[in-house]
Amino acid sequence: MSDNTNIRLTLPVVCFVWQIAMIILFGVFIRYDEESDTHWVETKAHDNITSDIENDFYFRYPSFQDVHVMIFVGFGFLMTFLKRYSFGAVGFNFLIASFGLQWALLMQGWFHSLDPQTGKIFIGVESLINADFCVAGCLIAYGAVLGKVSPVQLLVMTLFGVTLFAVEEYIILNLLHARDAGGSMVIHTFGGYYGLAISRVLYRPNLHQSKRMQGSVYHSDTFAMIGTLFLWMFWPSFNSAITDHGDGQHRAVINTYLCLASTVLTTVAISSLSQKTGKLDMVHIQNSTLAGGVALGTAAEFMISPYGALIVGFFCGIISTMGYIFISPFLEKTLKIQDTCGIHNLHAMPGVIGGIVGAITAAAASESVYGKQGLINTFDFTGDFKDRTVLTQGGYQAAGMCVSIVFGVVGGAIVGSILKLPIWGDPADENCFDDEVYWEVREPATHHLLFTI
Amino acid sequence: MSDNTNIRLTLPVVCFVWQIAMIILFGVFIRYDEESDTHWVETKAHDNITSDIENDFYFRYPSFQDVHVMIFVGFGFLMTFLKRYSFGAVGFNFLIASFGLQWALLMQGWFHSLDPQTGKIFIGVESLINADFCVAGCLIAYGAVLGKVSPVQLLVMTLFGVTLFAVEEYIILNLLHARDAGGSMVIHTFGGYYGLAISRVLYRPNLHQSKRMQGSVYHSDTFAMIGTLFLWMFWPSFNSAITDHGDGQHRAVINTYLCLASTVLTTVAISSLSQKTGKLDMVHIQNSTLAGGVALGTAAEFMISPYGALIVGFFCGIISTMGYIFISPFLEKTLKIQDTCGIHNLHAMPGVIGGIVGAITAAAASESVYGKQGLINTFDFTGDFKDRTVLTQGGYQAAGMCVSIVFGVVGGAIVGSILKLPIWGDPADENCFDDEVYWEVREPATHHLLFTI
Amino acid sequence: MSDNTNIRLTLPVVCFVWQIAMIILFGVFIRYDEESDTHWVETKAHDNITSDIENDFYFRYPSFQDVHVMIFVGFGFLMTFLKRYSFGAVGFNFLIASFGLQWALLMQGWFHSLDPQTGKIFIGVESLINADFCVAGCLIAYGAVLGKVSPVQLLVMTLFGVTLFAVEEYIILNLLHARDAGGSMVIHTFGGYYGLAISRVLYRPNLHQSKRMQGSVYHSDTFAMIGTLFLWMFWPSFNSAITDHGDGQHRAVINTYLCLASTVLTTVAISSLSQKTGKLDMVHIQNSTLAGGVALGTAAEFMISPYGALIVGFFCGIISTMGYIFISPFLEKTLKIQDTCGIHNLHAMPGVIGGIVGAITAAAASESVYGKQGLINTFDFTGDFKDRTVLTQGGYQAAGMCVSIVFGVVGGAIVGSILKLPIWGDPADENCFDDEVYWEVREPATHHLLFTI
Repeated sequence: MSDNTNIRLTLPVVCFVWQIAMIILFGVFIRYDEESDTHWVETKAHDNITSDIENDFYFRYPSFQDVHVMIFVGFGFLMTFLKRYSFGAVGFNFLIASFGLQWALLMQGWFHSLDPQTGKIFIGVESLINADFCVAGCLIAYGAVLGKVSPVQLLVMTLFGVTLFAVEEYIILNLLHARDAGGSMVIHTFGGYYGLAISRVLYRPNLHQSKRMQGSVYHSDTFAMIGTLFLWMFWPSFNSAITDHGDGQHRAVINTYLCLASTVLTTVAISSLSQKTGKLDMVHIQNSTLAGGVALGTAAEFMISPYGALIVGFFCGIISTMGYIFISPFLEKTLKIQDTCGIHNLHAMPGVIGGIVGAITAAAASESVYGKQGLINTFDFTGDFKDRTVLTQGGYQAAGMCVSIVFGVVGGAIVGSILKLPIWGDPADENCFDDEVYWEVREPATHHLLFTI
Repeated sequence: MSDNTNIRLTLPVVCFVWQIAMIILFGVFIRYDEESDTHWVETKAHDNITSDIENDFYFRYPSFQDVHVMIFVGFGFLMTFLKRYSFGAVGFNFLIASFGLQWALLMQGWFHSLDPQTGKIFIGVESLINADFCVAGCLIAYGAVLGKVSPVQLLVMTLFGVTLFAVEEYIILNLLHARDAGGSMVIHTFGGYYGLAISRVLYRPNLHQSKRMQGSVYHSDTFAMIGTLFLWMFWPSFNSAITDHGDGQHRAVINTYLCLASTVLTTVAISSLSQKTGKLDMVHIQNSTLAGGVALGTAAEFMISPYGALIVGFFCGIISTMGYIFISPFLEKTLKIQDTCGIHNLHAMPGVIGGIVGAITAAAASESVYGKQGLINTFDFTGDFKDRTVLTQGGYQAAGMCVSIVFGVVGGAIVGSILKLPIWGDPADENCFDDEVYWEVREPATHHLLFTI
Repeated sequence: MSDNTNIRLTLPVVCFVWQIAMIILFGVFIRYDEESDTHWVETKAHDNITSDIENDFYFRYPSFQDVHVMIFVGFGFLMTFLKRYSFGAVGFNFLIASFGLQWALLMQGWFHSLDPQTGKIFIGVESLINADFCVAGCLIAYGAVLGKVSPVQLLVMTLFGVTLFAVEEYIILNLLHARDAGGSMVIHTFGGYYGLAISRVLYRPNLHQSKRMQGSVYHSDTFAMIGTLFLWMFWPSFNSAITDHGDGQHRAVINTYLCLASTVLTTVAISSLSQKTGKLDMVHIQNSTLAGGVALGTAAEFMISPYGALIVGFFCGIISTMGYIFISPFLEKTLKIQDTCGIHNLHAMPGVIGGIVGAITAAAASESVYGKQGLINTFDFTGDFKDRTVLTQGGYQAAGMCVSIVFGVVGGAIVGSILKLPIWGDPADENCFDDEVYWEVREPATHHLLFTI
């Protein structure tokens, strides 16, 4: 690893060139969709829409804003737990999400909604939600390499991450026609393994040299709880943001709300069990309490029933917390995967659970529970897929999960190799987890070292 | 009080057993309501509902999310003001709210919406709001005992609190048919006296031994303002979340918005008056600015008129701030009630004021102001209550308030006695208000002690 | 400047007298509008409105709450960056916003919606949004004088600021019939120059005496990022809160979302370029990333097209960050304008850019892009203005911007002179930027001084 962390050339160049590229590509491809265009007044007349409230904006904007908060405050603050990497956590999260959402609108547009006649991509509020979702995959991956990479590397990781995301999403949702409204597979499994694979390739055998900077201080843990809570509270919006209007959004909210509540109790139980005197560990509370939301990403819109949601949450809290206690140390020692935020426990594993839960609940769906039309609506058994059975659907759900794992692992390995080139300005082992490498920090370091070690 | 704070057995057992009980009870009783079930498509056809936007989800979900933020971030961060109890404030708040909302769905379901034919409880977004409301009562009570109890005691307190809440709510709203949309009586008065009674029973004569841990530091006060502001900003959503569609929600928002603005000015005035040189006290700004929202919980949906809302806020700011200056020390010295967060000033007193304001404005309601149908809608003078006069309604409102006080005081006394048993792992007097009792804290205590005393 | 900072008389008197005045004026003038009145049931029947969801509440309340968060958490926490002025930042912001919104409802009501028949002002959710907008102008101005004035001065500044705002807004929106949905001109340009002019009049040649208190510490910068992010995330709601139902709100959201994303990348680029080793400066990230939202305040509802929004953001990030690097030091040295938060770079300049962008895009609007009815709707070419051309509209937009600058500069100069009177209890030069002047601070100052200098 280089320890020339001067990014005064690379960072501005990447930012400028990529942003100019975005402007050109948006100019060529992106237009307002019919619900956000001034011609909406004509569309309304043409389609006999009687009220402006029928505009998709009013169905999805509150959820969009909640998702937006999760992306920027949720992910950003969750990663502020390190004693001296809050600027990097919040600031680089801000940077890569801002780039990623633009690139996502293009990539997802090309794959999902390119109008064949005009060659244009028409965007509306649902596109913004999907762009935020796509970015979430890359922010998850950031968690694995937090403190060990430069902002330029993060931007590269995001560029490729969004690209891979759009492809695997197209395969899973369009070709396999799997359902994944909250992205257990598409977002969390992919993002998790993508980050873990990159971290594996970038393995730093001497990372212990920055041991003094690892871990948290009292107030950094409190800041991180801001991230945790905004993720936790708004996860029902995340899982329901793009589900069907009406009962679809309503049900996804109820399921996610219940599942997450259940996760909190089992997380606390396992965390307490893991210490001699039953003390709780903030790492578990900050992270594992969210595992239920991840694991219900696929099945949230299904008729999993309220107690079913509680059961999923129950096991996710246990598995995720045990992941922090047993699996993370194993991954680091044996597989050489250094996972700063423990995304394996919060996203990768619960994402896989979510894929499995989705496949099982899809395969077990029945007309007696869903109703004839309800079953068709929920699984979108229309057009080419009108003859698909729930059992076949379950199989395709499982296939979708495999696709997301493969894309994450293989994609991450390739991108990791690119990031290993000695041109990106990443920090030396002894300077990891330290904001002073990339940020003007006004307090002298001595002050900090004196009081937190 | 025991000073064996080892909760490695009790906490996990309580979490696991209670969560499993929730799963079983949810399996037996809880189902999706017709607006969140896949059969909604049939319901729509049957009821001639033309658009999915008529689903109650779209009327209430934005308010629900605001309430959800109040419960977890609002209450949680408001209590982080102590210099070294932020983990306990946010973390235990998170734990008991997550348990409480599940138990509330059951208790409120049994009392309010058990379908006699099927024996099931059907839940939708309004149920989630009500569950969050119910939990709020217990979180208020937590404020009185903050730093002095173990998480196991908090869970026990929540179990009984939710149970008592559901009963008093049933009596007040269903039997007495009082109106209390924002819960001045049902939530704040009950929750306040419940917490104060528990704190009285758990009186610690030697609490001064942990005096070094009481009070705030600079950043803990700033964290607490996050809680204050999210409570303050979203209180209009709290008071309007379950009011009537249309003008009911609209009016409740306007009233609460105005009332709270007025409270801020008089809180600042009294706080400044209370110090020799007019300096402001963060304790007042953090808490008393919210009293107006509490006091408008009952009357927010009435035609109290904009200036009426300002008047309520005006007096609440004064009374609540004076409560912190004069009444809290009196309660502690004379009545032996140690009220960590001053919930008497923020919830109990303003709740009682809110009940009185509600009774008076109900009794003074007239057809000339409300309109014939408006009066019927606002007070729900239908069915068994179609002949009730506004004067009678005012009387029942007042009766409702008495019920909430009695349930709070008597219930709290009983639950307090249970919590006095020496089996719950509560901290010794000299270890109160210290996160190190129940949390892994990574900074050595010496660091902390050196710099904050 | 006086250094008698005792405000025990003035602050309570101002709070009480003004709040009582508000109550009286509200009693005389303010009533619920027809959508928040219990007579709504009759209005619905009369106007053939079939569903409660047509109530304007459901179109605007989610946006209102986002704006509300921006005003209290956004502006409040953005200003917590100073090492020892967080209480003043959040607390005084809270105070003046709470007063300002009441006064704004009256002032804006008299100018915009006084019913000539009844002499009453009828308020609904849109009035609340406008009141919050009006307050934003004063909070912007607060940024220029942060740490240098007393709360009494801030209240006086708010009283006059809201008054001036309502007049300039009336001239710009009603007389000139300019469009300014997100307030590039009306809010940001006016607020920016108002604050800068006041700061110029209150120039303190010896401000360097409190140099030890200027600048940030690690955690205060992290707190400030809470403000930054909530402003950034919710700016789409700000710019769309009062635009036309349907496509108007939808389009304003898309434009603002994209513009702000673009701003982040160029802000990072310039910030990195400005330091020897490419390190980033939190001041830039906290502030300049928001400039795009300001600059799209006028044009957000126009058909500026997605790539147009990206271009605006691109240049705003550059200009605003360069403002912090080059223009702010120049303003302080040469023009004697001490601008604590750099509002010239975040609000004044981007506001002017927004006015220019609005004028150009209005002048360039065409029926081929907007559609015949779309053009009429977007620019409200109805009634007296039905024959106005887009070119004329562009001219009036430009005229509107000039009005906002004039009102800001002249109004600020006059109000600044009033605030110079030695009766307001403002701090001495050596006590600026210090919370201990107006707040009970529990940690001894020595602790603070020891560890942050």
